[in-house]
Amino acid sequence: MNQSKNAWFSREGLALLTDLYELTMMAGYWKEGRTGQRVSFDYFFRNLPPHAGFAVTAGLDPFLDYLEHLRFEQDDIEYLRSLKFFDEPFLAFLQGFRPTFSVNAIPEGSLVFPHEPIIQLDGTIFETQLVETALLNFMNYQTLIATKAARVCLAANGEPVMEFGLRRAHGPDGGLSGSRAAYIGGCTSTSNVLAGKVYDLPVAGTHAHSWVMSFESELEAFRAFARQYPERCVLLVDTYDTVESGIPNAIRVFKEMHAQGVPLRPAIRLDSGDLAKLSKIAYRMMTEAGLEDPLIVGSNDLDEDLIADMKRQGARLNAWGVGTHLITAYDAPALNGVYKLVAVHDGSAWQPKMKTTSNFEKATDPGRKQVIRYYDTEDHPLCDVMYLIEETWPERGPIEGRLRKQPHMKSRRTGAVRAEVLLQPVFRDGRRIDPRRSIHDLRTHARVSMSSLPDEFKRLRNPEIYHVLLSNRIGDLKDSTLSNRDMT
Amino acid sequence: MNQSKNAWFSREGLALLTDLYELTMMAGYWKEGRTGQRVSFDYFFRNLPPHAGFAVTAGLDPFLDYLEHLRFEQDDIEYLRSLKFFDEPFLAFLQGFRPTFSVNAIPEGSLVFPHEPIIQLDGTIFETQLVETALLNFMNYQTLIATKAARVCLAANGEPVMEFGLRRAHGPDGGLSGSRAAYIGGCTSTSNVLAGKVYDLPVAGTHAHSWVMSFESELEAFRAFARQYPERCVLLVDTYDTVESGIPNAIRVFKEMHAQGVPLRPAIRLDSGDLAKLSKIAYRMMTEAGLEDPLIVGSNDLDEDLIADMKRQGARLNAWGVGTHLITAYDAPALNGVYKLVAVHDGSAWQPKMKTTSNFEKATDPGRKQVIRYYDTEDHPLCDVMYLIEETWPERGPIEGRLRKQPHMKSRRTGAVRAEVLLQPVFRDGRRIDPRRSIHDLRTHARVSMSSLPDEFKRLRNPEIYHVLLSNRIGDLKDSTLSNRDMT
Repeated sequence: MNQSKNAWFSREGLALLTDLYELTMMAGYWKEGRTGQRVSFDYFFRNLPPHAGFAVTAGLDPFLDYLEHLRFEQDDIEYLRSLKFFDEPFLAFLQGFRPTFSVNAIPEGSLVFPHEPIIQLDGTIFETQLVETALLNFMNYQTLIATKAARVCLAANGEPVMEFGLRRAHGPDGGLSGSRAAYIGGCTSTSNVLAGKVYDLPVAGTHAHSWVMSFESELEAFRAFARQYPERCVLLVDTYDTVESGIPNAIRVFKEMHAQGVPLRPAIRLDSGDLAKLSKIAYRMMTEAGLEDPLIVGSNDLDEDLIADMKRQGARLNAWGVGTHLITAYDAPALNGVYKLVAVHDGSAWQPKMKTTSNFEKATDPGRKQVIRYYDTEDHPLCDVMYLIEETWPERGPIEGRLRKQPHMKSRRTGAVRAEVLLQPVFRDGRRIDPRRSIHDLRTHARVSMSSLPDEFKRLRNPEIYHVLLSNRIGDLKDSTLSNRDMT
Repeated sequence: MNQSKNAWFSREGLALLTDLYELTMMAGYWKEGRTGQRVSFDYFFRNLPPHAGFAVTAGLDPFLDYLEHLRFEQDDIEYLRSLKFFDEPFLAFLQGFRPTFSVNAIPEGSLVFPHEPIIQLDGTIFETQLVETALLNFMNYQTLIATKAARVCLAANGEPVMEFGLRRAHGPDGGLSGSRAAYIGGCTSTSNVLAGKVYDLPVAGTHAHSWVMSFESELEAFRAFARQYPERCVLLVDTYDTVESGIPNAIRVFKEMHAQGVPLRPAIRLDSGDLAKLSKIAYRMMTEAGLEDPLIVGSNDLDEDLIADMKRQGARLNAWGVGTHLITAYDAPALNGVYKLVAVHDGSAWQPKMKTTSNFEKATDPGRKQVIRYYDTEDHPLCDVMYLIEETWPERGPIEGRLRKQPHMKSRRTGAVRAEVLLQPVFRDGRRIDPRRSIHDLRTHARVSMSSLPDEFKRLRNPEIYHVLLSNRIGDLKDSTLSNRDMT
């Protein structure tokens, strides 16, 4: 990350980026003399985005930056004082506050599944409560977009996907954080120049309809653009009439440039009309005119379903600009990630806790956990199992566990040959302890993880459900708690 | 706005918050010697959000802040140099760049309708192109959320609506900009403390399930909370069992406090289960226990439709916490606002321009425009008419215009008694010229505008379509251009 003073990504000054009730509870704990009580929280999500068989986790690095900068500044204290909810001793306490919690996390770019802890925090109830909202804000959005990007890239089947969404993103940082997450999820580049600068992302883009309209003619506009940018000349051919005017003018300009000895690749962008049909017409017109291997970029309200369907119809598009549907995760624009208390320290040991509302589905999994991913002989993921941290787990062989919703029922998987420990220590004593990885390494990690996942989990519709099991001990703990209650 | 150094809202350092193609085109115009060419752009949207009969415009004030701070800093130039797309003379030119354009806009908080220019920019093609992406980013998101908030508040029918969305917002600024827009659209408060500080919004919130779980018992947790916050004590009653445990414990604590002479208002929050049914049970239990006028707050995936439907069923909820569906505009998370070239100055006069692709629906309305809103004898909006800026328009009486999609067809409205000029000058010579209005004034303006709009446009489903007409001159201009082309 570029270390400029631009706070749009420095994650400084965000101590108040929290829901008021977190501060209300902090003040309550403080007054009750309970600030020292140690608790453990899990961050996880209950449901994958619609039709998804996996998620790609993202947002950890910005969250750790936020933690490192977590301080109440003088103007924050003054603002809180002005609310008249908090008394002076509490405000003085806040001013001296420094985080002391321990954080474990599954690395960014990893594949994650419902109900497994992606981030696990141990600390005082005071500090763990404060950071809930910011953690959810960073992780829910970036994981949502990295996952959407991975699906779009699956549909594009290896062809480049450019993220074009800034103009429809939710505010400037919706664009910045979203571009970052889209790149981790597999996009090739972004149109967002500030995201390129801040996060070291490749940037891409050509020209708009307004370029064409500002010239006397489309032909003049194309000639000018090719003259200026012979090395990255993609001509937008749909300002007036794509087939009658745009494509013929583009062909004429490419041939003029070739005649002048400029070896530019013939490249056009289609941004309206039926992209599949027009791409076939364009491909035929261009190749018949002697222009080999044309690049035909499609854009205009694309998503993974439309890309997959156009490919099925033999569209000749071979690069994809995806905006609105990617940067907003249009079909389901929020990941339902939550942050739940899973254990309380009674002074001598951790006591597992669980929320058991009348809604059985929302019952949490108790205890401080480690997540183990088992791999088969072909190094494909076989299943994930949540163990209590103090448990020992098998490294290979048959894996036994319990079903999350029927924790008394055993489930057995055979053929594990390797166990991967997913939750890694990332933050201790107020400092990040895992080395910051480059955005390119995070993207590579996601790509490698995706390629190891069997196809049945990567279908765009109705994928197989990947198994996340409870250990026998967590299963027993959950079952005995649930059995003592009436459930609806 | 609070003038802190926190750049999460200062709108400094955002010159590169733009799509790469804007810079590519700028460099192209510069090399072609066309930087001085003057053009005029309109910002408008083509479709209202689903089921909406109106939109509430928001985002102008942050956009003007961005314009005032628009400078390429040294590190921006260094980044652009590193891309190797741009030559040194152009980079030197960028470094000295200062905006000179004129901006007119419809005031924030006003009701706006499809196709009418909400912001209109006159300037060099160079600078008008640069700001396109940031303008769309600010305006599309905030207008989307202000509109969603207005619909949620219509459903709540005057009862308080608290915006609770930060944890599902699209990044930190999705939360900040979204809270701001939700307040303009009619929300009473936000849970987002930083938004409260930055934008001077009322903040609200109580406690979470984790508060209850961290105590030995629910009763102890409620007692502690009531002791700490007698003046704003809303007890969350669904951690364990709402009817068997949560509501009875809350009643017991309220009665204990009353017995101690503390006059706190009995108030609970329901966050799971069937809110309508549980609210009726809670209301009955509380009033039968002698607790008068209870406040019963509902939260949990609410939106305008669910609120309206629960009211129809006689739910006893009387305050609403709305999160995910509001802050992401869940059912349609992007406003399709666009920025289109409408005129080019030929050295002596403005020449109207229009985009006429093969998609008739996307044909733009040519020329530099003013928008006039006509009011009837009861001061209800009657219709809006777009005129060329140089036209004179009637102040009252029968209003004649043309239909946008059939510009040869006349439309006539009678009974106008007042004409309101919507586009106002807001930015000249690099500075904002309209006084900054307080966020509370913007919210009041939205509320007054909403109350003047007849009910038929405010239905949540299938509202009447509000008429936006072209003047006869724009109609003739559009008709003659379209008539000379084949349309599909």
